[in-house]
Amino acid sequence: MTGARPWQGICREFRDILPPVPDAAVVTLLEGNTPLVPAPRLAARIAPGLELHLKIEGQNPTGSFKDRGMTVAVSRAVAGGAKAVICASTGNTSASAAAYAARAGLRCAVVIPEGQIALGKLAQAMVHGARVVAVRGNFDRALELVRTLAEDGTAVVVNSINPDRIEGQKTIAWEIADALGRVPDLHALPVGNAGNITAAWKGWTERDRATGGGTPRMMGFQAAGAAPIVHGARVEDPKTIATAIKIGNPASWRGALEARDASGGVIDAVSDDEIVAAYRMLASLEGVFVEPASAAGLAGLLKLGASGGLNGAAVAVATVTGHGLKDPERAVQVSGAFETVDADLDALRRAVLA
Amino acid sequence: MTGARPWQGICREFRDILPPVPDAAVVTLLEGNTPLVPAPRLAARIAPGLELHLKIEGQNPTGSFKDRGMTVAVSRAVAGGAKAVICASTGNTSASAAAYAARAGLRCAVVIPEGQIALGKLAQAMVHGARVVAVRGNFDRALELVRTLAEDGTAVVVNSINPDRIEGQKTIAWEIADALGRVPDLHALPVGNAGNITAAWKGWTERDRATGGGTPRMMGFQAAGAAPIVHGARVEDPKTIATAIKIGNPASWRGALEARDASGGVIDAVSDDEIVAAYRMLASLEGVFVEPASAAGLAGLLKLGASGGLNGAAVAVATVTGHGLKDPERAVQVSGAFETVDADLDALRRAVLA
Repeated sequence: MTGARPWQGICREFRDILPPVPDAAVVTLLEGNTPLVPAPRLAARIAPGLELHLKIEGQNPTGSFKDRGMTVAVSRAVAGGAKAVICASTGNTSASAAAYAARAGLRCAVVIPEGQIALGKLAQAMVHGARVVAVRGNFDRALELVRTLAEDGTAVVVNSINPDRIEGQKTIAWEIADALGRVPDLHALPVGNAGNITAAWKGWTERDRATGGGTPRMMGFQAAGAAPIVHGARVEDPKTIATAIKIGNPASWRGALEARDASGGVIDAVSDDEIVAAYRMLASLEGVFVEPASAAGLAGLLKLGASGGLNGAAVAVATVTGHGLKDPERAVQVSGAFETVDADLDALRRAVLA
Repeated sequence: MTGARPWQGICREFRDILPPVPDAAVVTLLEGNTPLVPAPRLAARIAPGLELHLKIEGQNPTGSFKDRGMTVAVSRAVAGGAKAVICASTGNTSASAAAYAARAGLRCAVVIPEGQIALGKLAQAMVHGARVVAVRGNFDRALELVRTLAEDGTAVVVNSINPDRIEGQKTIAWEIADALGRVPDLHALPVGNAGNITAAWKGWTERDRATGGGTPRMMGFQAAGAAPIVHGARVEDPKTIATAIKIGNPASWRGALEARDASGGVIDAVSDDEIVAAYRMLASLEGVFVEPASAAGLAGLLKLGASGGLNGAAVAVATVTGHGLKDPERAVQVSGAFETVDADLDALRRAVLA
């Protein structure tokens, strides 16, 4: 009927630009190929005449962009004969690692600092059969132990210090340009650990070298309470409702600075109120439900648009990184209450039309 | 890079087989084109030599297959000049209706029976700005009021009694056949309100008339505590953990019987324990996280496979209808606890390898 060629997932579709993975080792849930959805109502709120598109990464298999890099990292772990993967993460990374490890038949260990355990955030890791281990120490100590276990060969680390993750994530640049038929003027996205902006910039520059078309200005936005790159200083106790970017000491700090400077872009901060406002607009104006951190890029465009800081850019793409179902409590919290009426036609009609 | 043509959503991709929608009226989040993922480990548990694929409908924009029909229903409501849509639903239908109405700039009202309100299930409807109204009455009374408001022109009803919903959902047959390169021998899916099996069968028969290739045997599975079609009698108080198929009086009862009888298929019941077992296998063997109801089709294949009831079928497709993030509590509940260890390398290594 449609003639669309079935999508084969990141490792196979982007074989030419990724580290080698033997076909038999590919572990895929057919990630990638996410929708690029026009957002005209939100665009009108940002700047007159702006064309805005949302790259909806929450429609990846585990609900976030992490799947793009995880398929590469886990496939290469399989190719290398690994028996286990390991990560320190309480969020999207652990969900993705656990799913791909399950599919590969590998063990997966998720290491978390004791006392920072929200079971809901670990629901995916647990259902996919990962072993969740809390260590009596902070996150830095957990990550240090994970690195040591990786070095001694116990397991392959799949945190973003694994360069295969960045390689897989860079593919978003090709998908955006293919769907749009051009390179956008701006590419906005949330910045936490900064692997995503680093990877996207790597993709844009590699694509430009291979096929031309130029590169966008990279517009990265941190949460104001977790903005080490904006302030040029590590944040000891990051605070934001946008948990996926609540990072005080980003692993890819240098990559983010390079993306900003080489692209003529911006890394700025947005408040939690601005993030929540953008989050609500995405859902109520465009029908797109994201996790709060995902709205940071739009919050940033709204902020810059209001101050004339977009310099007449014509076409912007914003990556929204994770699905809103990752954090349903936030949706309930920001929404109005329902009302109760008698089972009577007039009462219901009044309530519906009010 | 990839040369993949960007997917344009159900209304545009399947224009030739759907009720007419003027292009300007199309309301889309680029739903459809969901992955068809091989499930070899699960296939081996069902029957030796079986080839099994999962059609992962949870990767639609709002996390369920409902988006396929909702884009058609809401687009046609827009084309007809509607100002509002309305549905009686506490689950996936309300989430989808609210998202597409938001995108269209239409009001959306979600009517629910008082006292059956789990806020988490309504998180999506609420964040997309739907007006949620609880009526002092049961579900049947709520649906009756909704129908009456639709008849008097207050709003377009987008429950599955709206035939545009079935039309949109039938498209899954074309996508499966395109991705597989053939028609499967079996198509398994959960049965609740029975709109989905009715729509899939309509798709298979229309496709067969248009292009040949045959039709699969339709294998529908109800939860044992909500199995009116299996028992041939309405269930007054349906009970199952699979909330999305907890229906005592299916709207498309007749369509389900026709799909079963005309295809040489089966409508059978599976217990909650069988559903949970299949749910856990999907997540831990294949890396696919679904809402519990979605696992009913696999639970059914496992049951029939064990009793030799698959009659040597070679290729089966199972629709998994909704994303696991729709019900994260269930994932936590069925998973083991985590353990806590000292921040010590040997302790962590033992925990990881245990």
